[in-house]
Amino acid sequence: MRILITSGGTSEKIDDVRAITNHSSGKLGKAIAESFAKSDVMIDMITTRHAVKPEGKNIQHHYIESTADLEKTLKDLMTANTYDAVIHSMAVSDFTPESSTTLEDLKSAIATQPADLPEALVDIANERTEKKISSDTDHLVIVLKKNPKIISLIKKLQPETILVGFKLLVDVPMIELLNVAKKSLEKNHADFILANDLAEIRGEKHHGYLINKQQKVKEAHTKSEIADLIKSEVMKLEEAK
Amino acid sequence: MRILITSGGTSEKIDDVRAITNHSSGKLGKAIAESFAKSDVMIDMITTRHAVKPEGKNIQHHYIESTADLEKTLKDLMTANTYDAVIHSMAVSDFTPESSTTLEDLKSAIATQPADLPEALVDIANERTEKKISSDTDHLVIVLKKNPKIISLIKKLQPETILVGFKLLVDVPMIELLNVAKKSLEKNHADFILANDLAEIRGEKHHGYLINKQQKVKEAHTKSEIADLIKSEVMKLEEAK
Repeated sequence: MRILITSGGTSEKIDDVRAITNHSSGKLGKAIAESFAKSDVMIDMITTRHAVKPEGKNIQHHYIESTADLEKTLKDLMTANTYDAVIHSMAVSDFTPESSTTLEDLKSAIATQPADLPEALVDIANERTEKKISSDTDHLVIVLKKNPKIISLIKKLQPETILVGFKLLVDVPMIELLNVAKKSLEKNHADFILANDLAEIRGEKHHGYLINKQQKVKEAHTKSEIADLIKSEVMKLEEAK
Repeated sequence: MRILITSGGTSEKIDDVRAITNHSSGKLGKAIAESFAKSDVMIDMITTRHAVKPEGKNIQHHYIESTADLEKTLKDLMTANTYDAVIHSMAVSDFTPESSTTLEDLKSAIATQPADLPEALVDIANERTEKKISSDTDHLVIVLKKNPKIISLIKKLQPETILVGFKLLVDVPMIELLNVAKKSLEKNHADFILANDLAEIRGEKHHGYLINKQQKVKEAHTKSEIADLIKSEVMKLEEAK
């Protein structure tokens, strides 16, 4: 069996010294990798330098920073190799910085009423000669554009792979969490979605619901429980194929 | 001798899952701490969980994330203790997120012509009920407000301390780098500024100029050379007092 795991959080450059980062320690991805590694599964792991690393044999690490890097590495790996499952636990930035300007720049762009305001701000930012934004302004305006949805690429690249996606919300009712997870499962043709709430994650305690295509829900309460649940459900589905 | 070192980079929350981070490995701060620790100096170290940690006795770590945390911890420590020197090598965010809205929100705020656009955007953001910004929008607009300058607090809190500040620019001519450093030295009543250029930092190689109040400039080429130079210059000034 060979699987691909993404783990950690992406980081999107604002300039040479600043970035927007998605918090993710990589602990859950590490637990998942270690659970599969115990069963002699070959693992490719797309992760970041900051994320914690799993221990175990047959784990190969591929390092990325931004969502664009992730897209490239994922496409390269999924073109070169066939995976029985892809477990996409990385916290991927939905947006990437497109321009950074001052509030004064924004106001003057608005005054000229451009048809495309984000584009006008990119032009203003490009005209700036300094590579690091000056701190001589009271307000800074960062416009971000939407990143491609990485999870939606996976079944397009390998329709036969078992896809496990993740949905993290913050302090929402359980029913909302499950509904959002169900929508993500359908939209991305995932086989499972692990739904979790940041308000229910603290240290090793990690409350999660694993939802499958038949809308069956299984619950876990720690990172290692989630890891073992994902492994056993993926292996069951793989055997049933 | 007792000194305070700040090291690593601050991180400013955008929401519960995203933050703007200032890249800084903490390697230079580590080298400086280790250089002083060899001479039995007592060290308080304000740093982040992500930064690399110095080894040596008499080093006490104080962890922070944001610029606001840094301000509080610095004030607390400098009120409780007297430091012979403060070496402020931390990469501090000049700005902190004030509001996150969609481009549509920005346009509607502009259309109503508020006297204070950033304030109007804060109101819009506060009216949003979700704690995590939805990804259902093409562009996201983050407005950041200026942070207080932490370096300017140090001599106000302890006028007698020896202050070493840092100035990092990106790919500028040497003369500009030195001029900017000189301005920072005067403005913040620093005793030394270590001026460096990101384009001249790679691994252990780290080109830096240490400028003093008499505008004398000393050069170093690696992190450990910079660390030893700062230590010897600070100690010389301390003895001359």
